[in-house]
Amino acid sequence: MTQRQVTAGIDIGGTNTVFGLVDEAGEILHADFVQTKDFPNPQDLIGVVAEKILAALGNNLELLGAGIGAPNGNFYNGTIEFAPNLKWNGIIPVASLFGAKLKCKSILTNDANAAAIGEMVFGAARGMKNFLFVTLGTGLGCGIIVNGELLYGHDGFAGELGHVIVFANGRPCGCSRKGCLETYCSATGIVTTYISFFKENTFSEQIIDAKFIYEKALQGEEEAINAFNYTGEILGLALANSVAYTSPEAIFLFGGLALAKDFIFKPTRESFENNLLNIYKNKIQILPSQLKENSAAILGASSLVWKNLKKNN
Amino acid sequence: MTQRQVTAGIDIGGTNTVFGLVDEAGEILHADFVQTKDFPNPQDLIGVVAEKILAALGNNLELLGAGIGAPNGNFYNGTIEFAPNLKWNGIIPVASLFGAKLKCKSILTNDANAAAIGEMVFGAARGMKNFLFVTLGTGLGCGIIVNGELLYGHDGFAGELGHVIVFANGRPCGCSRKGCLETYCSATGIVTTYISFFKENTFSEQIIDAKFIYEKALQGEEEAINAFNYTGEILGLALANSVAYTSPEAIFLFGGLALAKDFIFKPTRESFENNLLNIYKNKIQILPSQLKENSAAILGASSLVWKNLKKNN
Repeated sequence: MTQRQVTAGIDIGGTNTVFGLVDEAGEILHADFVQTKDFPNPQDLIGVVAEKILAALGNNLELLGAGIGAPNGNFYNGTIEFAPNLKWNGIIPVASLFGAKLKCKSILTNDANAAAIGEMVFGAARGMKNFLFVTLGTGLGCGIIVNGELLYGHDGFAGELGHVIVFANGRPCGCSRKGCLETYCSATGIVTTYISFFKENTFSEQIIDAKFIYEKALQGEEEAINAFNYTGEILGLALANSVAYTSPEAIFLFGGLALAKDFIFKPTRESFENNLLNIYKNKIQILPSQLKENSAAILGASSLVWKNLKKNN
Repeated sequence: MTQRQVTAGIDIGGTNTVFGLVDEAGEILHADFVQTKDFPNPQDLIGVVAEKILAALGNNLELLGAGIGAPNGNFYNGTIEFAPNLKWNGIIPVASLFGAKLKCKSILTNDANAAAIGEMVFGAARGMKNFLFVTLGTGLGCGIIVNGELLYGHDGFAGELGHVIVFANGRPCGCSRKGCLETYCSATGIVTTYISFFKENTFSEQIIDAKFIYEKALQGEEEAINAFNYTGEILGLALANSVAYTSPEAIFLFGGLALAKDFIFKPTRESFENNLLNIYKNKIQILPSQLKENSAAILGASSLVWKNLKKNN
């Protein structure tokens, strides 16, 4: 009997580590997760996840490789380096540890880069050679595709769009600087904006998140709509500036904020076109990602291997 | 007798079109120029320049190809498109016209891109794979090298760093928008800054340019020194933001402003380091270009062909 070929997609997040087996068409044949915080030692997590992956393969599936997405993932070294959202210290050679346990090629990159490749292999960017992929979650992540390849730069850390400073002395950022784009344009940033529109903070007992603000906007609440407009205006300008660097064909938005559809896309596109240099006007689309929230992490990570296999054929 | 192999470097500028023959080591064997404005019809200019190049070849030199640098040059199409500083209208197929006259391969790109490749082939970026090359002349031009190749993007117009908006509603720019980086950080931008430091504009009869301000700074004039500091502060922040996109190994500064040495490099480097994200700190050098002002245009344009020949070997 011929074995069906799959790759493993592993996404290491601050809360959960999700993983699964994915075939060439992007079908997820198996998915599972562990809680990252249960593993103070990264080697233990890698051991347990690898065991579960090997068990899921059974006799029917052939593992061609493992792709790993992780915060502060360094593609060149296959390491996670000083990730602020993980409890692990220092530099961890995650790719080689997984490779040894799974006995296959392992590729690691940061989570936004993995999602960008996922969009290219399985999503709306199929056939595109130059695009930007922007995740609007807790922070703002970004993967830049140039000539069909991820832009890694000299040290593997290119594409930190979330930490472009948009206002000198602006909002304090987790990176210890001020005015970074992600303090305004992210699921967290819009909450700050929204709350600032109220004279008194009466929300102390409610959970305010991007979804809450989206629902208020649907109800027609002015502050909620204005929070999206303000966020879109800043995001549109930042994306227009991004175009001047890499001249992409399209920009994909993914994550919590992108789920607010026109509330965020309309002001973003308006500000984007208004701020674009003439030579770029009316030719770059800002589109929603076609990766689904719940499968994007596994698909993105697994696509690292599928992309690599296709390149070598 | 064996012929010595050369490539032609042709730089089409608003005032002059300079051209020359360059050997593999970067030696300019012949150089000449015509005044661009003498040729209302671009085909006439191309005819005259090609004739002069063919005459200079004589029997001793073998022409391997022609590289052309030009404002608004489009690499993908080999065209000059709607260049505001040239009198020629519309889209002109300059590369194919030169190719037909010179009977050789012709490659065209914009002038800053050509200079970036010149730095990589003949200058201080030899051996580097990821760097930014910034020209601080009348405007601010930029060539971005990623993985040893110029970043062109989807339409060939990547690298327009001069038109990143640094202040919403800032200084009016020639591109019809406001607050573009080049309105602050260029030989023209620093003049605006310098004059703004004086309550009364008593300079109407003097020519104020970057060189004038440099000389005043050398004499210890506070306004001149402050003009460099102000320019460097904005440039340093903009370059720190650039790093977040492409994560380069080094950034080279070229052109009128860069000649002011420490007056511009010191405040630029200071602001750059202060504004860099932690992961990039203390590892990216800001360096003066090693291309000489008077030969850079020819070397840059000719390097397009030398780079191409090396890639194909």
